Amino acid sequence: MPSFRQYFPILVWGRDYDKSALSNDLIAAVIVTIMLIPQSLAYALLAGLPPEAGIYASIAPILLYAVFGTSRALAVGPVAVVSLLTASAVGQVAEQGTAGYVVATLTLAFLSGSFLVLMGVLKLGFIANFLSHPVIAGFITASGILIATSQIKHILGIRAEGHTLPEMLYSIALRLGEVNWITLLIGASATGFLFWARKHLKQTLHGMGTPPLLADILNKAGPVAAVVTTTVVVWGFDLAEKGVKIVGEVPQGLPPLTMPGFAPDLIGALLVPAILISIIGFVESVSVAQTLAAKRRQRIDPDQELIGLGAANLGAAFTGGYPVTGGFARSVVNFDAGAETPAAGAFTAIGLALAAVALTPLVYYLPIATLAATIIVAVLSLVDLSILKKTWTYSHADFIAVAATILLTLGLGVEIGVASGVILSVVLHLYKTSRPHVAEVGLVPGTQHFRNIDRHNVQTDPRLVSLRVDESLYFVNARFLEDLIQKRVTEGCAIKHVVLMFSAVNMVDYSALESLEAINHRLKDMGVGLHLSEVKGPVMDRLQRSDFIDEMNGKIFLSQYEAWANLTAGAQQGAADTGQGDQLRCGA
Amino acid sequence: MPSFRQYFPILVWGRDYDKSALSNDLIAAVIVTIMLIPQSLAYALLAGLPPEAGIYASIAPILLYAVFGTSRALAVGPVAVVSLLTASAVGQVAEQGTAGYVVATLTLAFLSGSFLVLMGVLKLGFIANFLSHPVIAGFITASGILIATSQIKHILGIRAEGHTLPEMLYSIALRLGEVNWITLLIGASATGFLFWARKHLKQTLHGMGTPPLLADILNKAGPVAAVVTTTVVVWGFDLAEKGVKIVGEVPQGLPPLTMPGFAPDLIGALLVPAILISIIGFVESVSVAQTLAAKRRQRIDPDQELIGLGAANLGAAFTGGYPVTGGFARSVVNFDAGAETPAAGAFTAIGLALAAVALTPLVYYLPIATLAATIIVAVLSLVDLSILKKTWTYSHADFIAVAATILLTLGLGVEIGVASGVILSVVLHLYKTSRPHVAEVGLVPGTQHFRNIDRHNVQTDPRLVSLRVDESLYFVNARFLEDLIQKRVTEGCAIKHVVLMFSAVNMVDYSALESLEAINHRLKDMGVGLHLSEVKGPVMDRLQRSDFIDEMNGKIFLSQYEAWANLTAGAQQGAADTGQGDQLRCGA
Repeated sequence: MPSFRQYFPILVWGRDYDKSALSNDLIAAVIVTIMLIPQSLAYALLAGLPPEAGIYASIAPILLYAVFGTSRALAVGPVAVVSLLTASAVGQVAEQGTAGYVVATLTLAFLSGSFLVLMGVLKLGFIANFLSHPVIAGFITASGILIATSQIKHILGIRAEGHTLPEMLYSIALRLGEVNWITLLIGASATGFLFWARKHLKQTLHGMGTPPLLADILNKAGPVAAVVTTTVVVWGFDLAEKGVKIVGEVPQGLPPLTMPGFAPDLIGALLVPAILISIIGFVESVSVAQTLAAKRRQRIDPDQELIGLGAANLGAAFTGGYPVTGGFARSVVNFDAGAETPAAGAFTAIGLALAAVALTPLVYYLPIATLAATIIVAVLSLVDLSILKKTWTYSHADFIAVAATILLTLGLGVEIGVASGVILSVVLHLYKTSRPHVAEVGLVPGTQHFRNIDRHNVQTDPRLVSLRVDESLYFVNARFLEDLIQKRVTEGCAIKHVVLMFSAVNMVDYSALESLEAINHRLKDMGVGLHLSEVKGPVMDRLQRSDFIDEMNGKIFLSQYEAWANLTAGAQQGAADTGQGDQLRCGA
Repeated sequence: MPSFRQYFPILVWGRDYDKSALSNDLIAAVIVTIMLIPQSLAYALLAGLPPEAGIYASIAPILLYAVFGTSRALAVGPVAVVSLLTASAVGQVAEQGTAGYVVATLTLAFLSGSFLVLMGVLKLGFIANFLSHPVIAGFITASGILIATSQIKHILGIRAEGHTLPEMLYSIALRLGEVNWITLLIGASATGFLFWARKHLKQTLHGMGTPPLLADILNKAGPVAAVVTTTVVVWGFDLAEKGVKIVGEVPQGLPPLTMPGFAPDLIGALLVPAILISIIGFVESVSVAQTLAAKRRQRIDPDQELIGLGAANLGAAFTGGYPVTGGFARSVVNFDAGAETPAAGAFTAIGLALAAVALTPLVYYLPIATLAATIIVAVLSLVDLSILKKTWTYSHADFIAVAATILLTLGLGVEIGVASGVILSVVLHLYKTSRPHVAEVGLVPGTQHFRNIDRHNVQTDPRLVSLRVDESLYFVNARFLEDLIQKRVTEGCAIKHVVLMFSAVNMVDYSALESLEAINHRLKDMGVGLHLSEVKGPVMDRLQRSDFIDEMNGKIFLSQYEAWANLTAGAQQGAADTGQGDQLRCGA
């Protein structure tokens, strides 16, 4: 049953699972678990949720992805950008810290999961392609800046709000007088340490003669070290009494069974954000999965990935989590640590479940500022302004799309930013194809080849205009062709024939068909014949379903040379002499 | 000063104006004036305005278009679809019959005029191309049905409301008991007469030996005859006393000077409808103008048309009118009647001004039902459901766009209908290009030609995969190519080289560039070389601005044959032998 197996990739890799794969997967799981504990707490904070939600969001989703996903190395769970989108979406329907907020995030995960599964079953993965690379790059960069800025208040120990950069900066500036200096000291030290660790810890450990595998594990444990140290300091010096915000009570135990809300109002309000989160999460996840798969000459199936990610989100919705996707950093770590199959993910889930059961009392004194530092260091690697320079050099239209996405995301928020980016890149694309390159061609003497008359020394005939259309014809550029031909033909009184050379036309939609009909009628009224040459098979098939070919005031030639030979020889007796005497007015 | 003259086309045709043109224009003006008087009153009614607004909207706008427009036959004024859109847009901000309603329509005309002039000056006429032919056809058909339905209440002499077909039908059904039978008799007779006149009057007149020119004028006067007869009947039998609604007092005199409202709220509420009205009006107008111009081998300049229509709307805003555009029926009548220059329009304006000064008392007893009959007969010619059949035969995607536009316009109103149509046609187009045709090609033995391996008997090499991409590469299809290559390469362990044949690629945007880079890196990881062949000049120029060519794990060949010759000969020493030992896992 190949179609059954297609929906359960676990049946493929599970069959060949052996000891070597097991030990590789176990090692990867240990490394990833260590990395995920502080990260999960921190991202939950970013999403406006209690810290345990981050842990819960990493357990059931990973297990479900292991069953349904096709990537062998993708690690699913809370990620920074999706956490930010969650906070932004849910913040519009409920207050942070209320039960309504938690239910809304579950609903968001449920809607997102349902949408992903639906897209997967209907094989609609191509929808993700509407997000162009420049829009994604711009959006991720702007999100990184927004996220880092949103954490500054925790480092400073002040209250501040806002969903856009100006709002946040203004709100922080207003309260700079209330800075808690102890919090700032802890936060700044943690941030500094984590930046250093990210850049230099591995080298230092190597220099100290640490065995490579251990060095690797210790390196990933940088955030854990920061967490442990600052927790001990806050506990030892009783800094919570001095205004340092701490994580506090975190329930101890396995993820609870939870129920998303199904009130129509709530669903109505969260549907669009859920779709947005799904698509952004999917795009990120697929590009990570594809990159990692290629390194081992494996393949992922994007439509099945939708199902895998959808199942993960549905899992999150019913086990106290929130929207998840495949994370870049954790997946790369998983891959580098040698994970061979999704079983590595399952072992990670077990590790996190143990942590949820046993370790949560230990984070009581963990300062929020340390989690904020973890987030800042993680997201600043997302910020890549070089995309502005690269797109500027390559294509101004792409640059406009990136710049607009960044500015609008920072200035007006994540949802407006990404939506404007998508609309803008579609409009810019349509604009580019709205004025297709159309070359007037002539015969290269002594050959059967035709070339642009502006670039080559070619033979032409005043009775004949040959135009090579270098783009598919569809509604956005159909009228352009009408105008262009109208202009060209009214310029020359001697013109008796127009030949459209269709060698690069891959498609003619109904609007373009009507434009061709209009061109045909207008040329007929002027006593000029309209001919086509080198029409591709699929285009010809379609044209034959319409009346256009019957009504054509000219012929269809297999090759441009055939058109030339026929029309320059026989123009006197004129297949096109159907004018209505109006030629006298030509040029009037 | 050619650029000055470009903005004032009147300076071009005005210079050569002579007696023959003058007499032709005068005759056309008489015929059009007779036709316009009842039509203008009726369309004002449709727009929810007092009847004189329709006359005013035909005077200043025609004069201004005569100065700025480039079409010699286009007749500008109130038209059915724009009147409907006006009623729909203004109905959302003010109550019909109030002063606020009138000011809002002036504002709508002002915004629409400003937007059109702005588009014209910035040469943004291409924006109109985003409306595909199927969407326009569907929208016009649905509007015709909506307009005709909206007039039924006047024929029945009842009150009813609603902006969508179900609302209107339901509202009419509720009040069927209140039908005024005298009104119904007048309305039904007028409708019947007008349908008969449209089809048979000209023939009948010819049969009676009426001279052709007179027959023509009388034929156009059908609505006038209906107006005169029913007015006399209502006056003679004092039917207004019996509940027949009449036009009543219409101010006598030239168009007043008026001032649109500039309150930010009002402008905010009307801006989007104004843009919609501008674009729909412009598209209609340009296609009429272009068709008529072609019949005399003349040209219109779409960007200058924007300025002409914009000026006409600004004129309407300051002289008691409402949004106008070039009408199909009136322009064809004008053209057929022999109008040679926009002076015909100016003479029509004078005729209408005389009517406004002298004739308005005569329409006091004109029944509203007669005007409704005029509208119904006029708009039913807009309804053309054959577009459904035509698009179904030609292309299902276009059919979906038409059907959705019709259903949504009827069911949810004009604005949602046309907006959904535009979005849907863009999405369908992107979907079609999201899975471009990519053919694997092989060498036709004994030649240098390459053909699809599925269709022809060609030579291939297991080490080499040659793919001909039949579409420009951009964000919507970039990832498709990534998936396709990944799939193809993981199928065959022997593959050492992939050649992308770019002969039909007219453009590579930044997203596609990044996809090519990703493909290159992944193929490199698999130890496979990526090569390009037959890259077009403009595409090559752009690729050279990026790092892609330097980082390419292969070469760029001028022709596909050169690629074949090089790669099949020299594969053993392998330009691409940069794999990392992972090939062993191939197919795992």
